[in-house]
Amino acid sequence: MFNCDKPQDECGVFGIYSNQKRDLANTIYYGLYALQHRGQEAAGMAITDNDRIKYYKNIGLVSEVFESKINEMPEGDIALGHVLYDSRVKKGENNVVNTQPIVFKGKAGFFSLAMNGKITNCEELRQQLIEEGCVFQTRLDIEVIGTLINKFCAKKDIASGIKKAMDKLEGSFAIVVITTNELFAIRDKYGMRPLCYGKHFDEYYVASESCALDATEAKFVRDIKPGEILQINSTGTKSIYMENINPHPCIFEYVYTARADSVIDGTSVYKARFNCGRMLAKNFNREVDLVAGVPDSAIVAARGFAYESGIPYVDVLEKNRYVGRTFIQPSQYEREASVKIKLNAHRMNIQGKRIALVDDSLVRGTTSKKIVELLKSLGAKEVHFILASPMVKHPCYTGIDIESYEELMAANYSLKEMEKKLGCDSLTFMNIEDLVSCCKSDIMDSFCSACFDKKYYGVDPKGDK
Amino acid sequence: MFNCDKPQDECGVFGIYSNQKRDLANTIYYGLYALQHRGQEAAGMAITDNDRIKYYKNIGLVSEVFESKINEMPEGDIALGHVLYDSRVKKGENNVVNTQPIVFKGKAGFFSLAMNGKITNCEELRQQLIEEGCVFQTRLDIEVIGTLINKFCAKKDIASGIKKAMDKLEGSFAIVVITTNELFAIRDKYGMRPLCYGKHFDEYYVASESCALDATEAKFVRDIKPGEILQINSTGTKSIYMENINPHPCIFEYVYTARADSVIDGTSVYKARFNCGRMLAKNFNREVDLVAGVPDSAIVAARGFAYESGIPYVDVLEKNRYVGRTFIQPSQYEREASVKIKLNAHRMNIQGKRIALVDDSLVRGTTSKKIVELLKSLGAKEVHFILASPMVKHPCYTGIDIESYEELMAANYSLKEMEKKLGCDSLTFMNIEDLVSCCKSDIMDSFCSACFDKKYYGVDPKGDK
Amino acid sequence: MFNCDKPQDECGVFGIYSNQKRDLANTIYYGLYALQHRGQEAAGMAITDNDRIKYYKNIGLVSEVFESKINEMPEGDIALGHVLYDSRVKKGENNVVNTQPIVFKGKAGFFSLAMNGKITNCEELRQQLIEEGCVFQTRLDIEVIGTLINKFCAKKDIASGIKKAMDKLEGSFAIVVITTNELFAIRDKYGMRPLCYGKHFDEYYVASESCALDATEAKFVRDIKPGEILQINSTGTKSIYMENINPHPCIFEYVYTARADSVIDGTSVYKARFNCGRMLAKNFNREVDLVAGVPDSAIVAARGFAYESGIPYVDVLEKNRYVGRTFIQPSQYEREASVKIKLNAHRMNIQGKRIALVDDSLVRGTTSKKIVELLKSLGAKEVHFILASPMVKHPCYTGIDIESYEELMAANYSLKEMEKKLGCDSLTFMNIEDLVSCCKSDIMDSFCSACFDKKYYGVDPKGDK
Amino acid sequence: MFNCDKPQDECGVFGIYSNQKRDLANTIYYGLYALQHRGQEAAGMAITDNDRIKYYKNIGLVSEVFESKINEMPEGDIALGHVLYDSRVKKGENNVVNTQPIVFKGKAGFFSLAMNGKITNCEELRQQLIEEGCVFQTRLDIEVIGTLINKFCAKKDIASGIKKAMDKLEGSFAIVVITTNELFAIRDKYGMRPLCYGKHFDEYYVASESCALDATEAKFVRDIKPGEILQINSTGTKSIYMENINPHPCIFEYVYTARADSVIDGTSVYKARFNCGRMLAKNFNREVDLVAGVPDSAIVAARGFAYESGIPYVDVLEKNRYVGRTFIQPSQYEREASVKIKLNAHRMNIQGKRIALVDDSLVRGTTSKKIVELLKSLGAKEVHFILASPMVKHPCYTGIDIESYEELMAANYSLKEMEKKLGCDSLTFMNIEDLVSCCKSDIMDSFCSACFDKKYYGVDPKGDK
Repeated sequence: MFNCDKPQDECGVFGIYSNQKRDLANTIYYGLYALQHRGQEAAGMAITDNDRIKYYKNIGLVSEVFESKINEMPEGDIALGHVLYDSRVKKGENNVVNTQPIVFKGKAGFFSLAMNGKITNCEELRQQLIEEGCVFQTRLDIEVIGTLINKFCAKKDIASGIKKAMDKLEGSFAIVVITTNELFAIRDKYGMRPLCYGKHFDEYYVASESCALDATEAKFVRDIKPGEILQINSTGTKSIYMENINPHPCIFEYVYTARADSVIDGTSVYKARFNCGRMLAKNFNREVDLVAGVPDSAIVAARGFAYESGIPYVDVLEKNRYVGRTFIQPSQYEREASVKIKLNAHRMNIQGKRIALVDDSLVRGTTSKKIVELLKSLGAKEVHFILASPMVKHPCYTGIDIESYEELMAANYSLKEMEKKLGCDSLTFMNIEDLVSCCKSDIMDSFCSACFDKKYYGVDPKGDK
Repeated sequence: MFNCDKPQDECGVFGIYSNQKRDLANTIYYGLYALQHRGQEAAGMAITDNDRIKYYKNIGLVSEVFESKINEMPEGDIALGHVLYDSRVKKGENNVVNTQPIVFKGKAGFFSLAMNGKITNCEELRQQLIEEGCVFQTRLDIEVIGTLINKFCAKKDIASGIKKAMDKLEGSFAIVVITTNELFAIRDKYGMRPLCYGKHFDEYYVASESCALDATEAKFVRDIKPGEILQINSTGTKSIYMENINPHPCIFEYVYTARADSVIDGTSVYKARFNCGRMLAKNFNREVDLVAGVPDSAIVAARGFAYESGIPYVDVLEKNRYVGRTFIQPSQYEREASVKIKLNAHRMNIQGKRIALVDDSLVRGTTSKKIVELLKSLGAKEVHFILASPMVKHPCYTGIDIESYEELMAANYSLKEMEKKLGCDSLTFMNIEDLVSCCKSDIMDSFCSACFDKKYYGVDPKGDK
Repeated sequence: MFNCDKPQDECGVFGIYSNQKRDLANTIYYGLYALQHRGQEAAGMAITDNDRIKYYKNIGLVSEVFESKINEMPEGDIALGHVLYDSRVKKGENNVVNTQPIVFKGKAGFFSLAMNGKITNCEELRQQLIEEGCVFQTRLDIEVIGTLINKFCAKKDIASGIKKAMDKLEGSFAIVVITTNELFAIRDKYGMRPLCYGKHFDEYYVASESCALDATEAKFVRDIKPGEILQINSTGTKSIYMENINPHPCIFEYVYTARADSVIDGTSVYKARFNCGRMLAKNFNREVDLVAGVPDSAIVAARGFAYESGIPYVDVLEKNRYVGRTFIQPSQYEREASVKIKLNAHRMNIQGKRIALVDDSLVRGTTSKKIVELLKSLGAKEVHFILASPMVKHPCYTGIDIESYEELMAANYSLKEMEKKLGCDSLTFMNIEDLVSCCKSDIMDSFCSACFDKKYYGVDPKGDK
Repeated sequence: MFNCDKPQDECGVFGIYSNQKRDLANTIYYGLYALQHRGQEAAGMAITDNDRIKYYKNIGLVSEVFESKINEMPEGDIALGHVLYDSRVKKGENNVVNTQPIVFKGKAGFFSLAMNGKITNCEELRQQLIEEGCVFQTRLDIEVIGTLINKFCAKKDIASGIKKAMDKLEGSFAIVVITTNELFAIRDKYGMRPLCYGKHFDEYYVASESCALDATEAKFVRDIKPGEILQINSTGTKSIYMENINPHPCIFEYVYTARADSVIDGTSVYKARFNCGRMLAKNFNREVDLVAGVPDSAIVAARGFAYESGIPYVDVLEKNRYVGRTFIQPSQYEREASVKIKLNAHRMNIQGKRIALVDDSLVRGTTSKKIVELLKSLGAKEVHFILASPMVKHPCYTGIDIESYEELMAANYSLKEMEKKLGCDSLTFMNIEDLVSCCKSDIMDSFCSACFDKKYYGVDPKGDK
């Protein structure tokens, strides 16, 4: 899946607790680079500088934001970083204030926060804090969280403030907090967003995904558990737990969001996707000449499909490696040409072929339609569209930007209607039980799959539709 | 005076309350342009956008900050603008957060604040608010003020909050506050910083100096009074007054800070300076060939001196009009060459001449020394250095960045020693009584002249030295 | 192959002759986008504007160069574009003058030139023209070519000038020339560099590779022939031929340079690479668990290898899709970490596995060594390194930047030594006959393979080593 | 005169011949800074780097162009610099190629050229060179001159080429040429554009105006003479002279173009302007309250006027020192407000006053009209507009951008009509004899005053009107 008409997770976090002052900015930079797929709108980092915390954040890719600034960051012993996904970050307004992290001055001195996720009761909390005398300068959830932490902070014990604040929050979140002498890695009580940590000698590394640990010297230790607040300081680590823990991580991380070389809650994302592809192949009984995946995210599932079915995997589409944020879409060809430019199509592998085309998921369907058109225009005889996930029928309220039923194809059309709209010869979805069986592990066997089946962390907080 | 080794006032503010939604950004831009001399580090503006307030601020000159952004600002009916003087605004850190204005969300919805001045009890207030549960994200005084206003805000009556907040503040300030339906123009109880307002049909304009009103359609109405909170809304204006009003405006505004074409508290800055020059001439009895002023700020006083003495005013130095923020000072000639580059010297008016050189004030003396050297090197026979103000002997704690005795030449050396250090043939200062007599008007006759005489608004809050 | 320690072809060209004035800049932009793999240092385009030619060129990716400028280009009816590969394009000097195209004013009015290739007798020609009274402002070969064309131009017949100029040039080149009413597409007498053309209604499109035609509305017509000067104007096309035509296209285009979805001289690059993989598999008799390709250029050959051998193709390495020109390599981890950051490794597909790793070619070997190390460090049991081309033993003097024997691993070490240096368990190269058999077609069966066998277009112009 | 509706001279040049390799870039930078008033569109410098010449040029102010590049310039022993005035330098096209200097490779190796002036027979020369086999890449006159120099260059004796090339050129020019071992300073046979040189120990400095020597260590030696080619190399200086020398320097340099602190051909620009003011005062017999000058260029003449008449000089207008190239003129107030913003008006010095307002010259009259309006709107009782030069009635073909009669107010209206159009109470011009008498010196007593009297260097090359 190579464009933006599918759901996007929000953000990636990274943190380091070092045993000594050193150039942490470089390491944070590498970590954020590896997490760039989780957010390309903005990036930021904060580093302790004795009894203060210095930070820099801006709009742009990690490389753009830090190109000229990384050498100006101080040496420090604790640091965090953030990559932002936010479709509202546009020019004109002062959007830098709406990027992460924020550095706060509170009862216990300076502390900084960065988060991946979404607090569903954030506006109620914000209004309550305003009434209590606080003001707010951004639309960020972390501004509310930072204020809550300070409010509940007893004396200079910020850990107590964090524990109490976390118990007030509803929603999904993976949070890193640093003070001038501690680091906290926090995962919501459902474990909705991934978060793990690793070690390298005496240094602790925290990251949204294990692939970011792989980009550094650190070795993976384990995932932060749902509802766990991992406190890291000079005495080592200590786990504090929230109330009402109810593990239901977001299954969409395996389907699309996470990088294939990450391992989340005991399951390799690569393996989960590969197995999805195999599972789909078992039930697929049409005659086709080849299997292909939609780049980049569906390639692995397509490989699994080919492996299981014995049908050859053949490259039909590749992402143009120079397509980026700065791509200009002039008006003229816009709609017609954009897919042609973003994808390199292997005409000769397509012509006259019956193609089993695997994609990870079908949300709005806009790009899928164009891809089918492209393949047909290049002479594909048949295009069988196979999704490595069930129909996306419900909005997500906790971190994925599908917010209304209107935009969901599967919520509005029957399978036959969708086939017709997409122009494909057949359309196949995975069922939810099969998906869960591919994603579960010894340490995690329940998921939030609300976008497919409306079961929001096993419950149903909103009664829409 | 053409460089930075003299005291610098901090910031300029501008505001508009219009009777209808229109393109206020342009008008704010013109107003800030006229106030640019009060702050060149950063600029910002905030404009109401229905029930929200949009803003944009950045580091740079007014023209640089708004070059590409002004057309993206919304139409609105209330707006404010700010130019920042802050020698700490440098690259590397996230300094944009330390520029003005800030837009807050509080009990009464959105409001925005910009200020010229300095709150001397700001850190105490900040710490107290932290203990009460608030967190802070910047080092700006206005963040504390905005929080205080919200704290004291009863229901949605922000005027009550402003009144109570202002009574808590010590120091100097001219503040503009906008909400989505009101504008407040506020001057501290001493009237330390200037602030005035004007009208154009049904629109109200507020500005740090009257010259900014002149740059727009508005006609000057009057100065905001010391301790006055002028509330402007759809019903017109209403004045609320602070407690303990004790008018003592900063006399340094007339000496150096303000633009010569402004009128403050009934006194034309041009006339005050001109009269200072005349006053100095009356007591000056050396024989010289010509009078010249150090550009730009001392030209007017030099003119008065020439007028009174009958000695011809002759141009000897002019500011190179291309010297700006981006001037590069390579290492090689740095110290020696910089004055030669920043000033164009009329060699033929200097050679063999006995020069009465008028400057506005003597603070650190570094540049004065270089100017005397330059004139001598170009053949001046004698240089008599005449200051249109008394000796600066005491730090300022309320808005001017002279913060220690060490850096003040007159606090550390005798007149003779100063003459020798500067290399001039004589050195003359004005006395404080004469300066006051040049600055006072029918509506203002007492000033804070602490930098000259240690009387901080008539009292002495700090016992240094 | 994902980095720069292998040979790089120089540049891509694109051109349009339209039957009417329209927004050609957009189409050129799309064409250059598709050719970006041939040059990422700079980009430029020139468009006729009545009796003049307007142009814009700058350093950067196509998207960066034209982001803000494309809308300022005029409408026109003839245009050309260029992407530059030039490792000498660095900051500091005026490198923009050393990018393409150049617009010249000559006997027949304005004309513009862009080229992919290298003129080996360029400095002799340049010196001769200087003696005849010409001066030069750049180090570009096209400045010499433009001057030659004008010199030989009889009256206003630029075609005659082009023909005579081309016969003076030695080396490899694909050139596009536009005047205000004609377009010329030119390929050197050996056909070293690819060049083809297509049509869309009455419009003619010229491109270095057919994949760039696919990115537009045009349909491929045919390759420009070795030694052909294709003249396109309002009367249609006309072919003029150079002297001493001797077809020997560069075989390295199939091995590495061209995009897999291009077809050159009758051979699909995809198919050539796929068949190379198959050919290699036939002679490979070691037992391995999986086949993998080094991204991006060797993936296709690896697929062919897997197809022929029946050994499963498994993803072990993927290019991090955010690695670009702006990637910062801080000093600390530089050498060690860079491969880890640029590639995402699927640890679980590697651990304990015997891997047949296919790459396109082995030149300096630096990155290959790091990749083998990475795989071993992730637990690979064996790494068998297989090259889809013969040993690169000789420098190229015609357009590829391998210029000395010193830097060529295979010119300095035996197979055993290379295996040891790379740290792999075995090292396999393709033989030249097999490579040729995979690349030849009905319309082209001889190639320049001098880098492998020292036969420079079938002859040996330099006697090194 | 503070805006662009008056004639603009074109460009400034600067050069250094040093006896040893050192950081010349800094010195060139200082020299260009002092010449910035002669051209603000672009800047460039070229420095010898052993047997090559490195250069950098770009669009922008000197400080903007070199901010980040000056430290990348090599050390060298010969260098030149240029500031460009060119109203055609706009965005969109590749205007960098149309800035100066150019570095050429010719018979004698590398050489570089920069020029202030205009070659009136340039297009004929260019066409002739094209026919002889040369091509051109820019619209710059110096490209033609460089080609001519090379054409006439006998062997490696570039001096011979320069001499012959100069004798072919018609028009006005001050040129600096550097090779890798010589520097040439050249002034046209009329001496139209100023050029002088100075020394500092063994180093030679060349500059368009003496004020640029003052900004460095150099001491003024003398002006380059009309028709002189000053050759500077390791053996010292040698003067070569052109044919048909006929000294008639442009008188407008004294009126407006040059900086007041420069001395040209024996006459101080300051003194010339001051004396113009005095001369005007002698014939002025109206009763006024004060004299004021239009900033910046007319201030000196106004001072002379006040000095002679005894009428007090009073400041009424000052240039806003932040008005620069980046000033945005939004549509709304554009015409009305722009003068108000660019000038600070001293309202209290204006109200009820009869003002003698001195300006340097009247060309299009647009801004003059706005200034009179502004003064009247601020309550001026009378405004008597006095020009320190005669009526500008004829276009200039040699370097000043007044190119047609249509735009010249005095060519189209009577004195009475002009008074009415400007809205002033009286309008006074200087006569040409008085102007000449103020500008002439012992070493120069004839001028080109064609814009006033149609005598182009004493002759009349064009018969317009």
